[in-house]
Amino acid sequence: MESMDDARERLSLNQITTERWSLKEAVEGSARADIPWIGLWRHKVAETGLAESKRLVRDAGLSVSSLCRGGMFPAASADERRNKLDDNRRAIEEASELGAEVLVLVCGAAPDRDIDSARQWVEEGIAQLVPFAQAHGIRLGIEPLHPMFAAERSVVVTLAQANAMAEKYTPQQVGVIIDVFHVWWDPDLYVQIKRASGRILGFHVSDWIVPTPDMLMGRGMMGDGVIELRRIRKAVEAVGYQGPIEVEIFNQTIWDQAGDEVLALLKTRFARHV
Amino acid sequence: MESMDDARERLSLNQITTERWSLKEAVEGSARADIPWIGLWRHKVAETGLAESKRLVRDAGLSVSSLCRGGMFPAASADERRNKLDDNRRAIEEASELGAEVLVLVCGAAPDRDIDSARQWVEEGIAQLVPFAQAHGIRLGIEPLHPMFAAERSVVVTLAQANAMAEKYTPQQVGVIIDVFHVWWDPDLYVQIKRASGRILGFHVSDWIVPTPDMLMGRGMMGDGVIELRRIRKAVEAVGYQGPIEVEIFNQTIWDQAGDEVLALLKTRFARHV
Repeated sequence: MESMDDARERLSLNQITTERWSLKEAVEGSARADIPWIGLWRHKVAETGLAESKRLVRDAGLSVSSLCRGGMFPAASADERRNKLDDNRRAIEEASELGAEVLVLVCGAAPDRDIDSARQWVEEGIAQLVPFAQAHGIRLGIEPLHPMFAAERSVVVTLAQANAMAEKYTPQQVGVIIDVFHVWWDPDLYVQIKRASGRILGFHVSDWIVPTPDMLMGRGMMGDGVIELRRIRKAVEAVGYQGPIEVEIFNQTIWDQAGDEVLALLKTRFARHV
Repeated sequence: MESMDDARERLSLNQITTERWSLKEAVEGSARADIPWIGLWRHKVAETGLAESKRLVRDAGLSVSSLCRGGMFPAASADERRNKLDDNRRAIEEASELGAEVLVLVCGAAPDRDIDSARQWVEEGIAQLVPFAQAHGIRLGIEPLHPMFAAERSVVVTLAQANAMAEKYTPQQVGVIIDVFHVWWDPDLYVQIKRASGRILGFHVSDWIVPTPDMLMGRGMMGDGVIELRRIRKAVEAVGYQGPIEVEIFNQTIWDQAGDEVLALLKTRFARHV
């Protein structure tokens, strides 16, 4: 077993977990709680301003585990798809400015019934972004989302699919993000974790609550659900991943709690369950 | 394209679609609407009585496409698992008595965090049922459920997994049920449909509504969502399936509509979209 020090060194607050906090509050809260990493969201960065966000993170002595999110490639018209690529380029510039190593890609849904075309647009979008990302020192992390989000958020829904997309590039260019909430159900999970060796650019934890109260907002604090968190973590580490572990929870009850309490609880749960 | 006659000959009302109707009402409603097949549910059969249910179906001139449902194999104790097997044997006897060719298996969830053990119990449960089912002339249809049900209803969540389980037996013993709602998101869908050739024991249609109002009750009428219904149907037929096509919709709004109206609508939608 790893020491508590090791766990503490790798813990990252994905700031959506404390959704009511501004970026400043999340950064300062993480520093108070001795959490060394933070995963930032673009809308929070935009509220605070890019330069000010960068300054706040640096002054607090934090490192940025990832920026959420790029992606959302599919759209009905070529114009819209170009606009989405432009937005992804801005996301890459922001990630670079903030010192994030990874831009998380939530790849987007089909604008109609044609899921194959949407998947093709995702592939084309990534292909067009890679040189720009590489020039900015940013790696693209394809995050497969749970299949229940296939119609609204991402046509990339399995780690096998994300791996196949990433393997067209070097691991310095494109890898995968493994979020337990999205992949825990997959009979092929451990095979695909092995296949992702060297390309895992992020590892996110939360839990799957039973009964599940809501598709989007139903994630739970680690230990409150049925996911084999430690088993998945060990599998991810067994193939070499030693980077930050983000706690990313969409849950209204947690969002309504005081941020400092949430951070105290997630540290306890992280040590016990992850 | 198939003729309207062909479509009409294959249409089946899964009686959960008219949840407020008793078995008698569903049978008589189907006959009125010229729908030749019906998929029965055990709790509806139990309300009406097995012999009476059989008589009603026969007198209306309907055929039973399937009985829902067996399965639910995993449980924490060996005693509970034995009880569940006993219940599956009763389901097989009922299916046989009703003249259904197939018992649909919804395989069950893990009683704890151990999804691998639950999957093993499913395999063991099926192995123990096969001789009994065969002796009664009933084929077991493994229905992979959507991964969002992995924690509460079925640890069998992909067609690949259902195929692998079924392939341990002859197609006369065990096959798969393909329900578009559960599998439409799968990047491997068409490969797995081909693999299921000769083992497809049922084909269920509904739709995936956007935005999705609810995990269990959010299914839509065909045409109201994003599933490529005709493409999937054609793929299923291309590998030889020519059996009944069940319309199975869990949706409170549809359940609250008058049954005859629902049947009229589903016939129209079936002809247009399936």
